[in-house]
Amino acid sequence: MATVPLITDEAAGAQARAVFDDIREKRNTDYVNNFWRALAADPTLLKLTWERVQQVMSPGALDPLVKELIYVAVSAANGCSYCVHSHTAAARAKGMTPEQHGELLQVIALANHTNALANALQVEVDARFRAD
Amino acid sequence: MATVPLITDEAAGAQARAVFDDIREKRNTDYVNNFWRALAADPTLLKLTWERVQQVMSPGALDPLVKELIYVAVSAANGCSYCVHSHTAAARAKGMTPEQHGELLQVIALANHTNALANALQVEVDARFRAD
Amino acid sequence: MATVPLITDEAAGAQARAVFDDIREKRNTDYVNNFWRALAADPTLLKLTWERVQQVMSPGALDPLVKELIYVAVSAANGCSYCVHSHTAAARAKGMTPEQHGELLQVIALANHTNALANALQVEVDARFRAD
Amino acid sequence: MATVPLITDEAAGAQARAVFDDIREKRNTDYVNNFWRALAADPTLLKLTWERVQQVMSPGALDPLVKELIYVAVSAANGCSYCVHSHTAAARAKGMTPEQHGELLQVIALANHTNALANALQVEVDARFRAD
Amino acid sequence: MATVPLITDEAAGAQARAVFDDIREKRNTDYVNNFWRALAADPTLLKLTWERVQQVMSPGALDPLVKELIYVAVSAANGCSYCVHSHTAAARAKGMTPEQHGELLQVIALANHTNALANALQVEVDARFRAD
Amino acid sequence: MATVPLITDEAAGAQARAVFDDIREKRNTDYVNNFWRALAADPTLLKLTWERVQQVMSPGALDPLVKELIYVAVSAANGCSYCVHSHTAAARAKGMTPEQHGELLQVIALANHTNALANALQVEVDARFRAD
Repeated sequence: MATVPLITDEAAGAQARAVFDDIREKRNTDYVNNFWRALAADPTLLKLTWERVQQVMSPGALDPLVKELIYVAVSAANGCSYCVHSHTAAARAKGMTPEQHGELLQVIALANHTNALANALQVEVDARFRAD
Repeated sequence: MATVPLITDEAAGAQARAVFDDIREKRNTDYVNNFWRALAADPTLLKLTWERVQQVMSPGALDPLVKELIYVAVSAANGCSYCVHSHTAAARAKGMTPEQHGELLQVIALANHTNALANALQVEVDARFRAD
Repeated sequence: MATVPLITDEAAGAQARAVFDDIREKRNTDYVNNFWRALAADPTLLKLTWERVQQVMSPGALDPLVKELIYVAVSAANGCSYCVHSHTAAARAKGMTPEQHGELLQVIALANHTNALANALQVEVDARFRAD
Repeated sequence: MATVPLITDEAAGAQARAVFDDIREKRNTDYVNNFWRALAADPTLLKLTWERVQQVMSPGALDPLVKELIYVAVSAANGCSYCVHSHTAAARAKGMTPEQHGELLQVIALANHTNALANALQVEVDARFRAD
Repeated sequence: MATVPLITDEAAGAQARAVFDDIREKRNTDYVNNFWRALAADPTLLKLTWERVQQVMSPGALDPLVKELIYVAVSAANGCSYCVHSHTAAARAKGMTPEQHGELLQVIALANHTNALANALQVEVDARFRAD
Repeated sequence: MATVPLITDEAAGAQARAVFDDIREKRNTDYVNNFWRALAADPTLLKLTWERVQQVMSPGALDPLVKELIYVAVSAANGCSYCVHSHTAAARAKGMTPEQHGELLQVIALANHTNALANALQVEVDARFRAD
């Protein structure tokens, strides 16, 4: 399923093709995954998104694997099937162990448990938690 | 605001009071925050939740600070104001630097950007991302 | 806070005023709560929503209290602060006991726990769960 | 699809196998559904989740069928396809009639209608709805 | 997949059949899509929903195409796969160009980016944004 | 409330101050709203977000007012109180009439009504709605 066609290399315009080639080079693979081929319907958005992924997910004050774990957790909360699949695979490629995946699932389950309770109880925020 | 009263030490039954005392001891503080005082309306759920928080958030295959970052990200995705406040404060108490907070925000923003696009495009999951 | 003014009886047009009066009569109270006063900015939507609330929440194959419990659970999942407050109050007015509220919170917490896990695991639906 | 393999009886370790056997015994069936087989990747989380499901969903101040209806409503709000399927099937197994299912759908539709309006209007909570 | 059977013309009762016929007539097509066939399990809800779709989505102060774009954006935010597909198709049928679709995707991505940041930052609403 | 301090002009570094000045100039106002002052904790993210808002929300294939209406609808679906307030105000500043606001609310309510039903029914997407 998809609401737009997946753009092949042949059908891609110059800007989209350049992003596809850059994905292959940076990731050292021949494969361009479906998200990018769907996004190529709007080459500007494709380029912007690919650039941001590279900037944001690169090493910094947080480890790239930690960033992927955060990404998986957000994607599960948003019910984004594609994103959960692709970023779980990315986390494994960056070294996520089964034990780390298990603990990620534990934190996800607990956070949704307490989020739901706090939303049902509508607890007022304690003054000490405010930064202002 | 709250949909239940916040239970004071004096109003708490024995089981809820024991959890309050355990929170104070384990966290080395006199302060019991509002979430636990609201949850005390159901002492069984209070006890279970407090026990799970201790188990899940303790050191393991993932660092406690990493777990807090994941918690903040899930809470923001779920729009849980109380949880975002309390776990951002907890992350700071565990050593989160402004640079790490900035990168957490960057990942949160990017994940919601691509989650929304994948949900709008309804991209089919690539076979290589499936574990089965 | 609100993104529209709350319409007073004096400021209300004839259609909105008729709905306000009907709310007072059906609920046997002088008080019209803020949701209806905000919705009065669009009298057609106000009237439609009030009529549907009366139809849907009246006794039928499900008990009115059961319907309120379902309403609270959906509102918490959607992070709607106003709705959680108003429907928790409505459930109490229809006889919800503290024990029932506690069990409602338990189901809400558990459902969000397993929803999050199923969304993170992206488990395929078993053939036997399909109705078609 | 799944982000983890479904664990067969043969591949399961002792702790996961014990949970599988307990599911079969308590439910009086030979079938262990996919959620549990996926969750078996983390036997601790599997055991904890199975124990909580039994405790929370058993008869108490709320009827087990009422709890399933609440579960379905939360799962639909969270967009959890697996959970909607499995808990709709569970509700039917516990006696949900087509009329009750129809009224459940009506409440779900209405709650999401008014939740969305309250979130778009950002109506302030009336003082009388606060428990504190 | 579905949690209810899709009702064929032959299996439909008189009220559901009348709605099916009205859909075919108003839309000038022989095809009744799956949503309506699933909803026919509750003919009252089917009729109400079909009537509201006609009223709300017809020309008014907003153009019908604009209404479809809003519908797609909400459906993506809610992770409703069926709705994203059907309303993207409806938007195309009402004249949505690829350029308009691209800009819709850009707004969706940006809104989710800033929504997530505002939820993570829990920024207080500026007094000037309040209508009251 | 906020999880970070709101950065004043005096406390802002050079990059953040430049964005504040640009906001004042482009919007022809002295006022910089709280979202930007909170985001200034991460000047890179502040700059990127401000640049994207300008690019995405400017006239194109879609009218700027239409883009604001879409923004409000997404923000309500995500339960982002700040965003609903600020973009409803922005829509008014771009000419949104009360009638248009009323129809926006009608579409928002209807979309959430049918999204919830489709998520509860888990209706399979009709082949004709797929673009691939």
